Amino acid sequence: MLHFESDYLEGAHPLVLERLMQTNMEQTPGYGTDVYCEAAREKIRLACAAPEAEVHFMVGGTQTNATLITAMLRPYEGVIAAESGHINQHEAGAVEAGGHKVLALPHAEGKLSATDVNRYVTDFYANPSWTAMVAPGMVYISQPTEYGTLYTLAELRALSAVCRKHHLPLYMDGARLGYALAAHGNDVTLEAIASLCDVFYIGGTKVGALFGEALVMPRPGAIRQLSSIIKQRGVLLAKGRLLGLQFDTLFTDGLYERIARNAIVMADKIVSALKERGYRFLITPQTNQLFVVLENEQLARLSAQVGIEVWEKVDDTHTAVRIATSWATREENVDALIGKL
Amino acid sequence: MLHFESDYLEGAHPLVLERLMQTNMEQTPGYGTDVYCEAAREKIRLACAAPEAEVHFMVGGTQTNATLITAMLRPYEGVIAAESGHINQHEAGAVEAGGHKVLALPHAEGKLSATDVNRYVTDFYANPSWTAMVAPGMVYISQPTEYGTLYTLAELRALSAVCRKHHLPLYMDGARLGYALAAHGNDVTLEAIASLCDVFYIGGTKVGALFGEALVMPRPGAIRQLSSIIKQRGVLLAKGRLLGLQFDTLFTDGLYERIARNAIVMADKIVSALKERGYRFLITPQTNQLFVVLENEQLARLSAQVGIEVWEKVDDTHTAVRIATSWATREENVDALIGKL
Amino acid sequence: MLHFESDYLEGAHPLVLERLMQTNMEQTPGYGTDVYCEAAREKIRLACAAPEAEVHFMVGGTQTNATLITAMLRPYEGVIAAESGHINQHEAGAVEAGGHKVLALPHAEGKLSATDVNRYVTDFYANPSWTAMVAPGMVYISQPTEYGTLYTLAELRALSAVCRKHHLPLYMDGARLGYALAAHGNDVTLEAIASLCDVFYIGGTKVGALFGEALVMPRPGAIRQLSSIIKQRGVLLAKGRLLGLQFDTLFTDGLYERIARNAIVMADKIVSALKERGYRFLITPQTNQLFVVLENEQLARLSAQVGIEVWEKVDDTHTAVRIATSWATREENVDALIGKL
Amino acid sequence: MLHFESDYLEGAHPLVLERLMQTNMEQTPGYGTDVYCEAAREKIRLACAAPEAEVHFMVGGTQTNATLITAMLRPYEGVIAAESGHINQHEAGAVEAGGHKVLALPHAEGKLSATDVNRYVTDFYANPSWTAMVAPGMVYISQPTEYGTLYTLAELRALSAVCRKHHLPLYMDGARLGYALAAHGNDVTLEAIASLCDVFYIGGTKVGALFGEALVMPRPGAIRQLSSIIKQRGVLLAKGRLLGLQFDTLFTDGLYERIARNAIVMADKIVSALKERGYRFLITPQTNQLFVVLENEQLARLSAQVGIEVWEKVDDTHTAVRIATSWATREENVDALIGKL
Repeated sequence: MLHFESDYLEGAHPLVLERLMQTNMEQTPGYGTDVYCEAAREKIRLACAAPEAEVHFMVGGTQTNATLITAMLRPYEGVIAAESGHINQHEAGAVEAGGHKVLALPHAEGKLSATDVNRYVTDFYANPSWTAMVAPGMVYISQPTEYGTLYTLAELRALSAVCRKHHLPLYMDGARLGYALAAHGNDVTLEAIASLCDVFYIGGTKVGALFGEALVMPRPGAIRQLSSIIKQRGVLLAKGRLLGLQFDTLFTDGLYERIARNAIVMADKIVSALKERGYRFLITPQTNQLFVVLENEQLARLSAQVGIEVWEKVDDTHTAVRIATSWATREENVDALIGKL
Repeated sequence: MLHFESDYLEGAHPLVLERLMQTNMEQTPGYGTDVYCEAAREKIRLACAAPEAEVHFMVGGTQTNATLITAMLRPYEGVIAAESGHINQHEAGAVEAGGHKVLALPHAEGKLSATDVNRYVTDFYANPSWTAMVAPGMVYISQPTEYGTLYTLAELRALSAVCRKHHLPLYMDGARLGYALAAHGNDVTLEAIASLCDVFYIGGTKVGALFGEALVMPRPGAIRQLSSIIKQRGVLLAKGRLLGLQFDTLFTDGLYERIARNAIVMADKIVSALKERGYRFLITPQTNQLFVVLENEQLARLSAQVGIEVWEKVDDTHTAVRIATSWATREENVDALIGKL
Repeated sequence: MLHFESDYLEGAHPLVLERLMQTNMEQTPGYGTDVYCEAAREKIRLACAAPEAEVHFMVGGTQTNATLITAMLRPYEGVIAAESGHINQHEAGAVEAGGHKVLALPHAEGKLSATDVNRYVTDFYANPSWTAMVAPGMVYISQPTEYGTLYTLAELRALSAVCRKHHLPLYMDGARLGYALAAHGNDVTLEAIASLCDVFYIGGTKVGALFGEALVMPRPGAIRQLSSIIKQRGVLLAKGRLLGLQFDTLFTDGLYERIARNAIVMADKIVSALKERGYRFLITPQTNQLFVVLENEQLARLSAQVGIEVWEKVDDTHTAVRIATSWATREENVDALIGKL
Repeated sequence: MLHFESDYLEGAHPLVLERLMQTNMEQTPGYGTDVYCEAAREKIRLACAAPEAEVHFMVGGTQTNATLITAMLRPYEGVIAAESGHINQHEAGAVEAGGHKVLALPHAEGKLSATDVNRYVTDFYANPSWTAMVAPGMVYISQPTEYGTLYTLAELRALSAVCRKHHLPLYMDGARLGYALAAHGNDVTLEAIASLCDVFYIGGTKVGALFGEALVMPRPGAIRQLSSIIKQRGVLLAKGRLLGLQFDTLFTDGLYERIARNAIVMADKIVSALKERGYRFLITPQTNQLFVVLENEQLARLSAQVGIEVWEKVDDTHTAVRIATSWATREENVDALIGKL
């Protein structure tokens, strides 16, 4: 059986695991106060050209999103997100469990537009009943989006400008950020993100780590005592060094972006094969997630041999599926997959 | 200046106030344990033909909705509501502050359809990712809706059947229930509501009381120790008798429905005049709230003389407004309003 | 049966009710934006010598406490209170339901001491594990306390100084504040409170109103957009004028303090009688709540004829009870009570 | 520098790390649905003699406690715990952030007594104001306690009986459970725990795992859809197999208890040396945490050479410290420590 269901099927990049082995019996203080965390923070600051950045490590994406959003918002505020946003769809109501509404806006292939955000906020304060409504308190985007698409630098600048005009912090969910950075034609660098967003996270779980996300606030002080909130939500890892070690490794010699490229190269190969065979895409492929429309018989045949994720029903005879590659995808498996298309 | 902005501009019906005066210096125990609350509960049970009903009095609608919904749902569940539902639009995120997502569905003139609810729930459990999504835990409707429209008995039966099929409690927000009961052609009685809904509230604030809503659970036991949750949320009135006295009065000799009729009669008169003069309605009028489309010059002229609520922009030259009548609306004011149309 | 169980057995002072009658059919805008609320706010500012004060009206004490505390604290902070504090004992966990720990300190007859607060905060930050503990974020006191005792001006000054030293807002629960202001030897005026506390509320429910509490922030801006939080928690009264009218009346010609004196005079009379007959007090009486130690046979005999509140078991043969007077207590009932002692 | 500050200074037991290495490039489905999790669950069920047990893996102790407690309690309920309980002292208010009060009872060397719990619950319902108070909804204990002490089987049976009498689920925090199981004279086996508690967790983070805790409900169904709550709180690990692999290894051939013994043996050696030299213990040592009273000069001298945790001030000239051993503590380091005493 081949597996292309997701980008977190394997463990960690071998270099990451090697570091965990090498340092296993070292004794370090807990909760992220160790030298490995500090080294990783410094390397991330450098990669982001954000020398003052506050960097916190957490274990997973949902907890990072929920913790940050809860910490950022006042009780009466909500978070603007694309209707397709991960926090709106696939985090089991974690934002609401923290007391806040997700203000879902329409999207284009997973992306929020600056125009829509601007209109929403403007209309909101023009509404005579706004004090009885949930005030927009921040904006959430993901790069790449849940549909694997990318904001261009121009789009991100426009969003950032609208957010600043309305005093709304802009937060980027980078669960798969490596695959955005490695994508063809991507013009949004870590430095650009650090300059245009108020907070973002660099995803490790899906890009080479066993687990782990690095939350970055380029200009510290946006949130008072975030570390206490992290502790309170139970998402502070006792052996914090496990996170530090992984990110230290990933941000040494550009490993993070380097290994991400494999996912793009493998995706490219699959895209070419799909196009040749006349498959239709639900979304134009840009990164490591491919959304393909299959006839239901094709789906039945393929899914008997290949793990793929059923995404949504398109019509009575067609279904969209997701094929995902990752840093760990092997070319032989890609070739095997292509053989079955 | 004439006032038609809302249905809670005045105080209470004179008979209600008279009872408060008469009993003012009586000494009663607190927190709803007094004889007036008990008498009111008994009259409400009788009016609903629900002799076992559990009845709780609260001060206002938002607190009643938020308390009931929080008490009803498990942490991972959300509440299905029309996108236009009061809990989704105009309660400042109270449901989310209690930890739950509002699962907003499309609506027709403010109403949810049984078909849409059934499809939503069916699709939800058919989605392979449903465990990462917010599970539907109950259904919220309002009668009349936020647009003044009414569910028919057939519609309510269909909704109730779908809810029972999926084990979803059905909750009706009756902030203006009196105006539904008094409306022409309404076929949804209190008994029908008690038989088809799992919980609902009879609104007093907008129908003759100074304030107050009566939450009714026809078949008790649906929620364990609701009274403790009411206390904890700070919405248990110390002098609970104030609520008991008001509902006891409103449910004596059919006062509640009787005074509601005035709102309907006054609304009818305005509707006729508007139709004669060729005004267009945003929503076909059914109860005491009229949604009328005005040219912006008409709006400017009218709102200089009459308090009306601006509802929403229709297009660049038209705006929808709301005109509301109530139990307290005087015919002379209606005539004066008509004179200005 | 005589009733001395509590100070909220009756309705409102006749002048308050009269105002509600007179204005009943007036039409006013909702949610506290009416002229009566504004007039009441102005009179309260004057009485507190706090011309810039932000004043919000709420319906009851628990909701006022829970709303203010939730609005004031950051997620990781708790509220310091006496172990006997109302928020710690008798509000059904409303503060915790809002996400915050009550940091309960020992008390002397219901009072927190400046020394204890200072030591607690100092020890807290000296604890090497403090980042894993709930940070003190504000201080809650009540005047009079739950035991009817009073802070002296010197004690309040000392507490205020400690709070300011540690940047902790000081909040006073004044559910029965009228009875403190009217008490013999009280030297803590409204002006003093407004100058020494960051926020406090003036209780109406127990001192002449049907219901209602006036939350005062002498120096506004301590809490951003408190009104939205009030709305979200469902504790904003639709017909806000009901609160405005009541406080406008209570703060006209000193009615509030004037009617409170009756409770003190009646309490004095009972205290004298109790002392003459050799009864022992659990707490030295200072205001309108008397905590008396009865032999269990005395309790059985008395409670068959007089409503009194059983407070706590003292030992196997003695029980402490609470006798409460109020603005509404009649001398004839006091005499009758004394006759039964 | 020697390190005895805590029992989570090192990484994982070598066999655990080896398994992670061996399986690193295997592809498994996420979120705990893989074969390693299933194998670990089965081994844990066997070790607990609880064939029907529901087993959930989480990353850390605070998140396990907070998730379970939130899932278990109704909104108006609190959790009874020893005043010294980890949830009351050192989890940054996580339980309260989930909406619940910790009902802190006095303790004897960290232990709750059945008598105290019984009296608390009995007194609670005898209190005429109980409906305004936080109802006890479950009981939390830890084994070993935060002071390293152990419940005997007789004590646990008594507690369990009291809990069942009052219909209170009994929850055991086993962050260091391995060290209890391995302790001299311990008579509380996993089977006994599974039979007497309603839910408990077996701690991995401090006993051989990189991280991870296994929550066990011996009789499933106590909590509806706990997995959804785990997901919602953001504590479901994407690569759940990392947890499964670790617990599968720890529960193969009794590794868990076997490696825990090292901590006990090393602690014994330190205890003997301390006793010989006349040191005083704050708490009689039973497991791997030793609470020793030092003169302040001793503390200054020792802490310059050995990492130990300052626990609390005893008096002006004495301080209590904690010395912790673990599965990873080396005898040479223990000898070096003894040399410095």
